[in-house]
Amino acid sequence: MSSPATSDGLDLEGAGRAVDAVLEDFLAGQVRGAAERGLPVEGIESLRAFLAAGGKRLRPGLCVVGWHAAGKKAVPASVVRVAASLEMFHSFALIHDDVMDASETRRGRSTVHRAAAMLHQDGRDQAAADRLGSGLAILVGNLAHAWAMELVHTAGLRPHQLAEVLPLTDVMRTEIMHGQYLDMIAAGRPTEDAERALRIACYKTARYSIEWPLRIGAALAGAEPGLHDTLAEFARPVGEAYQLRDDLLGVFGTPARTGKSDLDDLRDGKHTVLVSIALQRAGQAQQRLLHDLLGTPDLDESSAAWIRDVLVSTGARDTVEELITARLEQALHVVDRSALPPAAAAALRDVAHAATARTT
Amino acid sequence: MSSPATSDGLDLEGAGRAVDAVLEDFLAGQVRGAAERGLPVEGIESLRAFLAAGGKRLRPGLCVVGWHAAGKKAVPASVVRVAASLEMFHSFALIHDDVMDASETRRGRSTVHRAAAMLHQDGRDQAAADRLGSGLAILVGNLAHAWAMELVHTAGLRPHQLAEVLPLTDVMRTEIMHGQYLDMIAAGRPTEDAERALRIACYKTARYSIEWPLRIGAALAGAEPGLHDTLAEFARPVGEAYQLRDDLLGVFGTPARTGKSDLDDLRDGKHTVLVSIALQRAGQAQQRLLHDLLGTPDLDESSAAWIRDVLVSTGARDTVEELITARLEQALHVVDRSALPPAAAAALRDVAHAATARTT
Repeated sequence: MSSPATSDGLDLEGAGRAVDAVLEDFLAGQVRGAAERGLPVEGIESLRAFLAAGGKRLRPGLCVVGWHAAGKKAVPASVVRVAASLEMFHSFALIHDDVMDASETRRGRSTVHRAAAMLHQDGRDQAAADRLGSGLAILVGNLAHAWAMELVHTAGLRPHQLAEVLPLTDVMRTEIMHGQYLDMIAAGRPTEDAERALRIACYKTARYSIEWPLRIGAALAGAEPGLHDTLAEFARPVGEAYQLRDDLLGVFGTPARTGKSDLDDLRDGKHTVLVSIALQRAGQAQQRLLHDLLGTPDLDESSAAWIRDVLVSTGARDTVEELITARLEQALHVVDRSALPPAAAAALRDVAHAATARTT
Repeated sequence: MSSPATSDGLDLEGAGRAVDAVLEDFLAGQVRGAAERGLPVEGIESLRAFLAAGGKRLRPGLCVVGWHAAGKKAVPASVVRVAASLEMFHSFALIHDDVMDASETRRGRSTVHRAAAMLHQDGRDQAAADRLGSGLAILVGNLAHAWAMELVHTAGLRPHQLAEVLPLTDVMRTEIMHGQYLDMIAAGRPTEDAERALRIACYKTARYSIEWPLRIGAALAGAEPGLHDTLAEFARPVGEAYQLRDDLLGVFGTPARTGKSDLDDLRDGKHTVLVSIALQRAGQAQQRLLHDLLGTPDLDESSAAWIRDVLVSTGARDTVEELITARLEQALHVVDRSALPPAAAAALRDVAHAATARTT
């Protein structure tokens, strides 16, 4: 989200600050409430630190853009709170994802489960501390999941707004779980099936990152079905491109910039479009190399370099870049053809570029 | 919940059947929706099997009792659906609890994570299969959590009912996560602090099992604050007694009847009131035995027998029985003093007996 403030009062930076204030205030209240009842606050503090450590507030921004797309201008507190709930939901998804993938770092810091394991290491052997860390991170994620809904419930929405928005959040939550499920059972055994990889990307990332935030914002504004269709048409290619970019960054990114290891996806053997295309085109020896090395939990740097060589030499990396470009153009075309308010259209163009940029 | 049908149309067995029909119908719809989109249904099927394998439908029953307590009789579909959401929420809590405790059996069957690990064992080593099983069970639990809220959102409640009920469900969800957090960090190092053990029991089990179901049912009926107070006064001792009974059954129960191992709690070194009292009264040698053996992951039957001996010989077991009896009497006294409708009062008495009975 590079655009600071566009015309017509679409101030995404200001909205981002307002979202952060809501999250901070909400969590401070939860800390007080827990402390008063003799309940541990360390889990809440770790969620707070996780939210403060980064995140581009992409989803809250899109929620506000959706609100503007439906012709609204000033952003009331209720809409900011729903936007904040999407960032809380995103935290839930990432924290659990890191537990399930046993990732070590996120946003340039220890993942929540690693930090919890270190905090409770005293007097425990490594295995016991790790198991406790994972259990506590599951709970922190569950709090974020519960609180994402609580932020919506307590946003002060009118009954007709609640009736529009709750079904969208319900579908969003079911979809991401299915996408992660598909991702997990496919990991470690990637195939040439690029369509399956796209389906994983769609449900695991694309829809909850782009489409649902936009449409939830629009729904708050009472959008007509036609606007929902336009936003969905825009969001699908952007969401796919966003995941395709993430797949490239997961393998070719600079950990200092992405904040996560460039080995995790290879070690997990993620079934990505990138890997599917490489498998389609690989010679026998390259195929064997990919099947042997992808999904090796202790994969080292030199083996990772061999895999990267195959991803480049088969042209898979370039093809994924082309797929991203094509999707970006498709999304921009949807905006061009639309009758969206100019500020919202400009913001969507910015989003499409930002979500697919090489350095995100 | 032993009472079949009481007077004044409080038919708890009928309500239980209606709840099961809602759950079955909801999950069948989710299976269809997932299958249509090429998404895996095995996670949904495992949740379905989990729900079908048992569970006394205590929480849905209490929700219906709460509805009657507020003077209502016929139970509309919307109330049945909210009642069903409480059983769905309970499934979420148990499935995640089993992952966090690495339990092998529940309801006489493999736990969800064990079953998922076995299903995906082919071509994976044991550690990889176990890790995948845990990850998939986290997702199945997350689906149950999301769907518990979706069942409330789609119950067809009137705006004022939603406004009454959502805050209660939000508090319920936060509390249980805090209770589990406290439970996890206390496990493996139980102390003489019985008050802390009671606080764990309160937040981890008692409130979401007894108090919130009753009050949510009452809130649907538009209960006055006075009724909420009465139900809370009744629920707290029953909820505590329920957890105290569960603690006893976890150590002295018959696995064939409880459906779970009688070693898990000892292996986890759960910080229970039972253990706290034993530690308070134990001689030096007994203290050492408890501290050495409780929380041993591979504790065997003969060591478990030594622990049980200490729990009995210190009188801790008998004292916990007395605490249960005192709480049962306290709860019955609340009912006696109340102006509850006779059928609801009778149902609450039944609940108090059933929730604290030696064979539950």
